[in-house]
Amino acid sequence: MFESAELGHKIDKAEYDAVEPQLRAQLLDAQFDLLEQKAFAVVVLINGIDGAGKGETVNLLNEWMDPRHIQSWAFDSPTTDEAERPFMWRFWRALPPRGKIGVLFGNWYTDPIRERVERLSKKPELDQHLDEIKRFETMLVREGVLLIKLWFHLSKDGQRKRLKALEKDPRTRWRVTRQDWRYYAQYARYRKVAEHVLRHSSSGEAPWLIVDGSDPRFRALLVGRTLLDAMRKRLDVATRGWTPRQTQAPLPPVLDERNILNSLTLDQPLERDTYDELLEHYQGRLALLTRNPAFRERSLVLVFEGVDAAGKGGAIRRVTAALDARLYHVIPVAAPTEEERAQPYLWRFWRHLPRQGKVAIFDRSWYGRVLVERVEGFCSEADWMRAYSEINDFEDQLAVAGGIVVKFWLQIGKDEQLLRFRAREAEAHKRFKITDDDWRNRERWDDYVRAVCDMVDRTSTETSHWTLVEAENKLFARIKVLQTLCARLETELKNDVSRSGRR
Amino acid sequence: MFESAELGHKIDKAEYDAVEPQLRAQLLDAQFDLLEQKAFAVVVLINGIDGAGKGETVNLLNEWMDPRHIQSWAFDSPTTDEAERPFMWRFWRALPPRGKIGVLFGNWYTDPIRERVERLSKKPELDQHLDEIKRFETMLVREGVLLIKLWFHLSKDGQRKRLKALEKDPRTRWRVTRQDWRYYAQYARYRKVAEHVLRHSSSGEAPWLIVDGSDPRFRALLVGRTLLDAMRKRLDVATRGWTPRQTQAPLPPVLDERNILNSLTLDQPLERDTYDELLEHYQGRLALLTRNPAFRERSLVLVFEGVDAAGKGGAIRRVTAALDARLYHVIPVAAPTEEERAQPYLWRFWRHLPRQGKVAIFDRSWYGRVLVERVEGFCSEADWMRAYSEINDFEDQLAVAGGIVVKFWLQIGKDEQLLRFRAREAEAHKRFKITDDDWRNRERWDDYVRAVCDMVDRTSTETSHWTLVEAENKLFARIKVLQTLCARLETELKNDVSRSGRR
Repeated sequence: MFESAELGHKIDKAEYDAVEPQLRAQLLDAQFDLLEQKAFAVVVLINGIDGAGKGETVNLLNEWMDPRHIQSWAFDSPTTDEAERPFMWRFWRALPPRGKIGVLFGNWYTDPIRERVERLSKKPELDQHLDEIKRFETMLVREGVLLIKLWFHLSKDGQRKRLKALEKDPRTRWRVTRQDWRYYAQYARYRKVAEHVLRHSSSGEAPWLIVDGSDPRFRALLVGRTLLDAMRKRLDVATRGWTPRQTQAPLPPVLDERNILNSLTLDQPLERDTYDELLEHYQGRLALLTRNPAFRERSLVLVFEGVDAAGKGGAIRRVTAALDARLYHVIPVAAPTEEERAQPYLWRFWRHLPRQGKVAIFDRSWYGRVLVERVEGFCSEADWMRAYSEINDFEDQLAVAGGIVVKFWLQIGKDEQLLRFRAREAEAHKRFKITDDDWRNRERWDDYVRAVCDMVDRTSTETSHWTLVEAENKLFARIKVLQTLCARLETELKNDVSRSGRR
Repeated sequence: MFESAELGHKIDKAEYDAVEPQLRAQLLDAQFDLLEQKAFAVVVLINGIDGAGKGETVNLLNEWMDPRHIQSWAFDSPTTDEAERPFMWRFWRALPPRGKIGVLFGNWYTDPIRERVERLSKKPELDQHLDEIKRFETMLVREGVLLIKLWFHLSKDGQRKRLKALEKDPRTRWRVTRQDWRYYAQYARYRKVAEHVLRHSSSGEAPWLIVDGSDPRFRALLVGRTLLDAMRKRLDVATRGWTPRQTQAPLPPVLDERNILNSLTLDQPLERDTYDELLEHYQGRLALLTRNPAFRERSLVLVFEGVDAAGKGGAIRRVTAALDARLYHVIPVAAPTEEERAQPYLWRFWRHLPRQGKVAIFDRSWYGRVLVERVEGFCSEADWMRAYSEINDFEDQLAVAGGIVVKFWLQIGKDEQLLRFRAREAEAHKRFKITDDDWRNRERWDDYVRAVCDMVDRTSTETSHWTLVEAENKLFARIKVLQTLCARLETELKNDVSRSGRR
């Protein structure tokens, strides 16, 4: 979930100075168009980790735009006036009217998160609260509010560095209190709770946007551009008539070259000899693990996704080689059949779910919705935006029923892909593996990169996270897949007693 | 919630025989149009109280339509195949493809309700389950499924009569088991759980329809007409392109003259002398109750709605006469101001919520959305359909914060209204009370009756139910209001310790 936000995005001063004035002017324009049209209100939620730039961002927005038409609210402990009314009362009072922007710094998420971090509430209470919040936000969206939810993130390391730097400088030392270090000590728990809250309150209508808070310039541009894009999108349709079916907040703008895929070193060293040894080792472990009596009450769902020619098939064969043939099914996912098209999207995957003690291996999967269908425009933006949470729900249900979901994304570079395409074309018995579709997908390389990054950010969850596999060296890729799979199975089968199966 | 379903609706044989053949033919037509268009699938959920005609209705649907294109499913204890997969797996398998109708007799609601009735699950677990169900149903609707949720209801008395009748007849005696009587003994609990489930899983997109199950002919026509209307509505737009914004299942068709308003005896006897005594008595009690120390931690929200000239103002004055002037506010609700129009609909009511120890009296209220706005077409069908659950959420939040919500609907007949209008016009100092709006509303009398019945059925809840006040005798109406209010306050202040305030 925080993958992209922990890459250490950075914008240098020269670049910032070059784009900031224009962004500012555009934001001001958008603000005045909003004021004139009065077609909708904008609500910006500012949440996240302390020190990730929340306050600075609120100040900046007020500086960039006309502060007379921005209403900024910070909420502290409730006043008696507030405490004697329903929890949401003070937030209702803070809602901006149509034509204005409300920046809510501290809001309806603050208390539920804090209470859970400090163990003042239990998980079902948090979930119930989140459910109420979601209904409230759905109502806001249907009433026409443009809701932008920003989560400012810092990695644990980033958090520590920041506190150390402040302490080192005599002019800022006073800003670091014992409270700050106490929060720092709770970082892991805070992050876990936040992850849970973010994914359960992200919807197609009101998704969260995670802001890498480590670089002030990067986060400033990210927030500014996000706000601008979202306002423009709505302003432009406002005259034509907006329906709540349309997605509200756009996905984060791409500000720098850095992303979770190109941060990988795709060609990882691994020699054939070592490979042979490791292959035997891990296949042996995998064979034992799936024969472990504890596995008889679990099931395994493997998802293989990746760019064309990244070697999914080869990796899958190294997995199946270790499995009893009665134990697994490989489900190759291509265009849906007529029967499948007559059903809700996920139906074609539900039908292949394994029973206990069995393995289902999906060669491509339900992620097609947010990859090929998104990129090729086979479904509407609203459809693939809502798919993220539908997919998370789906995988949650698998986990609750004892399923172990392990997901791999195999990545190779664009040049390497070309070499592999050419090689396949040259070899008669592999020619069937290259189709026009493959060449066409290749043309949309950047769109796919974008889609993959969003997919990982939005569907790498507590219960099932994505493993990115550097796949230019096929040997390395296969071992990484096997190794990851074995490690995951070991953890799951070991923790079996503590598994929180609801039914 | 079950108000309309407990009126003892009945259709006599002659009437049934007169309309049944046509309904049957129309259903068959709709079914074939559906099959041909293949634009969407229909899912009918059959739930409710045993003996209220669930099985009979499933049989009837199969008899009326072409059973080859209806897939009926009954779910018993899960098979091992099912038990080893996620809870929803068997329901996914039962989903009909586009063009077909699936009748799910026993479905995703069955277990959660049963488990809660038998105390195998706690309330937060039920709520979490309902949340999952709602997300699943939202997904279905967005994937284009026409979802019709039918709840078959019988009053406790109706349930008893049915069992007794079966036992009396030697030919049917065998059908009544000890299990049936055991269920009967749990009736109150079952009803309570059902009420909770129905309201928390009713949404604008997928509302529940409650079927009075006491008369076989009435329920057959109600289900048949509902199904027909819903299918026709979708079939007719299918060619023009349907968006999930449109409401799915229509409101229940009106099959007979009987409704919760005309079942009232509007002119109730009460003499002036008795009135004077009772007025003094109840005003005294009310004064004491609002001065009770326990009230200092609660608040009171009164809602007065009713037909024009039913005497809301007079009733309100009899309440306020008993209150300390520093304690209450009367909020007359008319057309929204410009400031209010710039905000989400409920904002104008949130702003007037009382703090602890105070009373807010709404002379007309947030129910305007589902009354005047619905009838006059000031908002879209989707907007007022979603308002029911938004209003329930709103009142829930009030209750959680210690608010006591008491709602009155004052009813007079059409003739009585005319007399009062004429009398007002004749009296110079009351002429301002009659406007063109009043005469116009009067022309839509039947539409308002319809809207009021739906409102009461959908917003009379566990935490705040509607009191219908027979108001042709003003004296009686005022006393009923005061009496109801006092009784409610007494109960609430007495139960104060056990109140389940969450924050």
